[in-house]
Amino acid sequence: MKKLLLFLLFSVSALGQNLDSIFIKNIYNETLVNGQSYENLRFLCKNIGPRLSGSFGAQKAVDYTKKLMESYGFDKVFLQEVMVPNWVRGAKEEAYFVDNGKKNKVAIAALGGSVATPKNGLLAEIIEVRNFKELKELGVNEIKGKVVFYNRPMDPTKINTFEAYGGAVDQRGGGASQAAQFGAIGVIVRSMNLREDDFPHTGSMRYSGGGMIPGAAISTKSANRLSASLKNNPKLKFFFKQNCETLADAPSHNVIGEILGSEKPDEIIGVGGHLDSWDLAEGAHDDGTGCMQSIEALRILKALGYKPKRTIRVVMFMNEENGLKGGTAYADEAVKKNEKHVYAIESDSGGFTPRGFGIVGNEEQINQLTSFRNLLSPYGLHEIGKGSGGADIGPLAKTGTVIIGFKPDSQRYFDYHHASNDTFESVNKRELDLGAGSMASLVYLLDNLN
Amino acid sequence: MKKLLLFLLFSVSALGQNLDSIFIKNIYNETLVNGQSYENLRFLCKNIGPRLSGSFGAQKAVDYTKKLMESYGFDKVFLQEVMVPNWVRGAKEEAYFVDNGKKNKVAIAALGGSVATPKNGLLAEIIEVRNFKELKELGVNEIKGKVVFYNRPMDPTKINTFEAYGGAVDQRGGGASQAAQFGAIGVIVRSMNLREDDFPHTGSMRYSGGGMIPGAAISTKSANRLSASLKNNPKLKFFFKQNCETLADAPSHNVIGEILGSEKPDEIIGVGGHLDSWDLAEGAHDDGTGCMQSIEALRILKALGYKPKRTIRVVMFMNEENGLKGGTAYADEAVKKNEKHVYAIESDSGGFTPRGFGIVGNEEQINQLTSFRNLLSPYGLHEIGKGSGGADIGPLAKTGTVIIGFKPDSQRYFDYHHASNDTFESVNKRELDLGAGSMASLVYLLDNLN
Repeated sequence: MKKLLLFLLFSVSALGQNLDSIFIKNIYNETLVNGQSYENLRFLCKNIGPRLSGSFGAQKAVDYTKKLMESYGFDKVFLQEVMVPNWVRGAKEEAYFVDNGKKNKVAIAALGGSVATPKNGLLAEIIEVRNFKELKELGVNEIKGKVVFYNRPMDPTKINTFEAYGGAVDQRGGGASQAAQFGAIGVIVRSMNLREDDFPHTGSMRYSGGGMIPGAAISTKSANRLSASLKNNPKLKFFFKQNCETLADAPSHNVIGEILGSEKPDEIIGVGGHLDSWDLAEGAHDDGTGCMQSIEALRILKALGYKPKRTIRVVMFMNEENGLKGGTAYADEAVKKNEKHVYAIESDSGGFTPRGFGIVGNEEQINQLTSFRNLLSPYGLHEIGKGSGGADIGPLAKTGTVIIGFKPDSQRYFDYHHASNDTFESVNKRELDLGAGSMASLVYLLDNLN
Repeated sequence: MKKLLLFLLFSVSALGQNLDSIFIKNIYNETLVNGQSYENLRFLCKNIGPRLSGSFGAQKAVDYTKKLMESYGFDKVFLQEVMVPNWVRGAKEEAYFVDNGKKNKVAIAALGGSVATPKNGLLAEIIEVRNFKELKELGVNEIKGKVVFYNRPMDPTKINTFEAYGGAVDQRGGGASQAAQFGAIGVIVRSMNLREDDFPHTGSMRYSGGGMIPGAAISTKSANRLSASLKNNPKLKFFFKQNCETLADAPSHNVIGEILGSEKPDEIIGVGGHLDSWDLAEGAHDDGTGCMQSIEALRILKALGYKPKRTIRVVMFMNEENGLKGGTAYADEAVKKNEKHVYAIESDSGGFTPRGFGIVGNEEQINQLTSFRNLLSPYGLHEIGKGSGGADIGPLAKTGTVIIGFKPDSQRYFDYHHASNDTFESVNKRELDLGAGSMASLVYLLDNLN
């Protein structure tokens, strides 16, 4: 009798797995045959383009994604107001170094949040450092009145390129304030890019003590040229001019859509990306792909006639790049309304071929999600386990939400990240579709947990 | 005592695993920091370019890779003569369909091995079919005197795109002979491409009974336009002109290099790719990447001072695309010389981010290699198991060799395969390097098996 019971239990469980496996196959079929994220991304990139917080592009992206969700017939589509920083680049930057009387142009882009140089630019000696320790060792005597050139490359031996990013990005984020403490008058930071090419990669910087000195990213190729020239001529002078400025905060919005749950409508499974992008490019991989995959995940489930038990919500977060105001406001609102967000998934690592999911949660929660590997590995999702989630959904962790980051292959991400080549053309349709299918499949599996 | 013994055994085994893991890390570090395959590939693509068997380009590629191996100081570098087919495209093809008196240009490319059309081209009604069954049902009455248009797309729902290729390529390989049996005077075949774009993808075709009628590939975009027009006007006429021809067989070579084994020099572990490419492009992913990764695998091991127990051999196979003469001759020679090829690895699925290895061997052999997964999964190699090897190394199976195919991610491969956009620019350096590291790591692990 006990054996029979065990057998029945096993059979029911196997049947469940089998039904799940069939449904997941249908999810991928739907997006690979009828997927709309690629054409939606084309519109976002080509008809709207750059959409830095506070810009007209950002406003158009809010309107567009709201209409898109409405056109898919989600049960509810609404905006959540949020005040965002409003930094503008102004005229295109100019930069060169003067070596033996010859001007050598280099490719730079002001860092987001930076102040301008003096109106006619800034000409000074430039001194190369690899890290804050070197800077400190050089001290005021060597630094004062100079431009500091942070030139520590991302570590190419890290297999996951986000680790290499994490190991280098302190130069961009805090380099200006660190250098200002020793009397530097500007900073030039090697782009966060593993390739040698001539695209400067912008990104956010913060002032935290010291004077507010201007900061710009320099392309990896220009950085290498500058570094080589400095070896021969340590006294060479560097010129740069940028007239960016920070305007008053501006009103903007998170865009939210949802399909109401049939059994546990108060429990929310969220999926999202961030709608803002840097101003240099179309923001394809960062993070147009994540936005369009998130909307597509709900579209797929609806197209398959799936009636979720829990409420499935899609969120286009505003202002991930330079303030995280959208993610913060979203979590604050969830607390205020006492909403129960059980799981939140973000896609903000590019629209590349799926590799897995990174999870922030307790051991039991991580093990539960890791058990999905059998069902998801046929779709290339092998790397499911403890990891990082996503910046926008991070603030939800305080409400007990399990935070999940979609992890596509990371090799090409920093070729495009925050640079003008992050365009629609750099996205492959199948890779994008598979990511949307991966997110929809995870939503489905989570919705069916007890 | 028994416990102590088990503990010691476990410790020794753990130590071995740990040393392997350190050595594998060094392999990847070497290629990610000092890798040369990307610049070597640039030379092959940009300074040599297309290298169809029998062409001047193929000859230059033989000379170049021989010199490259010599420059790396491999113990032996030599050529193996092989006669190859010599098909030439001739002048660029022309094609259009005439719909309501209007000429609509379409993008075609003669299939490799095809005969020419009559000198001034061929104008006839065109009839669309999806497969040989439909062709047969239409029969002589409907087919005779017409051009047959094979338009069954690759199945987008296959996650591994090679499966989708396998399910569609019969149209290209055998379509002409099948159609000729029913009196067709030419065939136009939808390109083996999952994207909608305007690149025709060539590839080999075979004549096997029926008359020898000309065959050409049509781009997916043109195929869709033609198909839509045929729905409105089934009587529309199609024109195409191509003046390709098959010249007399030509002498060519496999290029072989090796590092001699220190303990079992008679046991050979082979690694390779094919040096020939179609004539339309630079043959970057097919198969410049495989060639350069294979040479790089040996370079890495040498650079790390590794002294292999077995002989490690790298082979640039000639004529994979339209005859497999190189792979066949290589295996024949191995039999004649009674060489013991224990393992053969081929990279001929593109230079994309690594996913795993496919193995052809018995269950025990497959299990043994599958046990490497723990050591290789940190580098993205999760998919290690029974699979397909590679065309060039296939003939070695008769000598008892375990045949292993390197399996990179397949999503983008057919965007470029056999088309003019298969250029150096479509290859990402890190993805290429990681593939070379994966192959070198597998060679190392195989060399250290008993």
